[in-house]
Amino acid sequence: MAATEPALASVRALVFDVFGTVVDWRGSILAELEALGRRKGIAADWGIFVDDWRRGYQPAMQRVRSGALPWTNIDGLHRLILDDIVQKHGIAGLDEDEKRQLNSAWHRLDPWPDAVAGLTRLKRRYVIGTLSNGNVALLVNMAKRAGLPWDMVFSAELVRHFKPDPETYLMVPALLGIAPHEVMLVAAHGGDLAAASRQGVRTAYVRRPLEHGPAAQPETVAAGGFDLMVEDFGALAAAMGA
Amino acid sequence: MAATEPALASVRALVFDVFGTVVDWRGSILAELEALGRRKGIAADWGIFVDDWRRGYQPAMQRVRSGALPWTNIDGLHRLILDDIVQKHGIAGLDEDEKRQLNSAWHRLDPWPDAVAGLTRLKRRYVIGTLSNGNVALLVNMAKRAGLPWDMVFSAELVRHFKPDPETYLMVPALLGIAPHEVMLVAAHGGDLAAASRQGVRTAYVRRPLEHGPAAQPETVAAGGFDLMVEDFGALAAAMGA
Repeated sequence: MAATEPALASVRALVFDVFGTVVDWRGSILAELEALGRRKGIAADWGIFVDDWRRGYQPAMQRVRSGALPWTNIDGLHRLILDDIVQKHGIAGLDEDEKRQLNSAWHRLDPWPDAVAGLTRLKRRYVIGTLSNGNVALLVNMAKRAGLPWDMVFSAELVRHFKPDPETYLMVPALLGIAPHEVMLVAAHGGDLAAASRQGVRTAYVRRPLEHGPAAQPETVAAGGFDLMVEDFGALAAAMGA
Repeated sequence: MAATEPALASVRALVFDVFGTVVDWRGSILAELEALGRRKGIAADWGIFVDDWRRGYQPAMQRVRSGALPWTNIDGLHRLILDDIVQKHGIAGLDEDEKRQLNSAWHRLDPWPDAVAGLTRLKRRYVIGTLSNGNVALLVNMAKRAGLPWDMVFSAELVRHFKPDPETYLMVPALLGIAPHEVMLVAAHGGDLAAASRQGVRTAYVRRPLEHGPAAQPETVAAGGFDLMVEDFGALAAAMGA
């Protein structure tokens, strides 16, 4: 598909899911956990630990959505989950500073190899931004470290709603002063894109087969459900004429 | 003053007032008005016109603050003022598209000559962002056109309060997950800085003697009222060790 097709020719801004789509959260967190384990002499199955940490994320957001928890940003939710799984995995000997430092590992995620080059191309022609459940500090710190050249950091924290709540997708056209169909969401997750599409936003699915690690089954989605399907951000830039 | 002084050594993020501090709103708008006048054969005192446009800005924000107007962003307020002064100056012959295009001139303001280089230096060591009454679309479009390398666009629109309301200054440390004294506001306006200081934010005054044009009396402020006073963003970067 080319950006000159009617549905895509109107796109003026591309916003990106971040965890898994732009950055390799699992590989990055796993590396920090393994380094911590070596430094502190802690033995644990860090692969299961990181998967547990991420698995706690949807239920934690649901507790905020339901009102069981007052508004808590992702740094706060990551810390609640961390305290649970440190106990569950029987890990002792981490003091408060070490836990705080470990929790901030989510600010230090490495981008997929094609991400910075693809975003840099797209930025020449489009407004590019995050659209992430990550909080602003996390996204700003990550972008600075990784060189992600965002024009704008859109975060769930700005509307106090997590994706896939409609408020998150609608924030982008509202704040950019454009129509929903002039915005495209790029994500490696079909559910996120389906929710965006219901708000009139264009969608690009990018395959990230290694998001859950080399041993995991990658997400599979039906072709035809999105405005674009691409293998990486280089292909996305090409398809969008950037 | 050097950044190693205690009060400044703790600064981690610099946020910038935009109109007048980063960009030359008067010169930029005046150039667009004069070009429009030539193109359309409209004679007017464009210098008075641009000053009237800007002079309408504080009363318009006050109408929002008092509740006389519902929340309206700066694009909306600029348009209300424009419609008034077009009539006041007896300017005829502008259609809706031309008025919309003219109103968006505020998205196309040129930076002061030292701004991009100074910000680029500061960005290496600090988080840099806007802290402006301008709306998000205006600030994002301006940054893209002018090459302003913000890490984050903080806008009054995100908290639906205009400066100098405390909510605007407090948004920055809250969203960056740092303390107010770790934030510095840079502005060419003493009143903006005084209001920020009351919220615990550090302050840097930058002189912009041409903000109101070559014939106007520049703002004068007493020395000693700010953490820093500088002549331009190059001097600011040097003072902050960047």
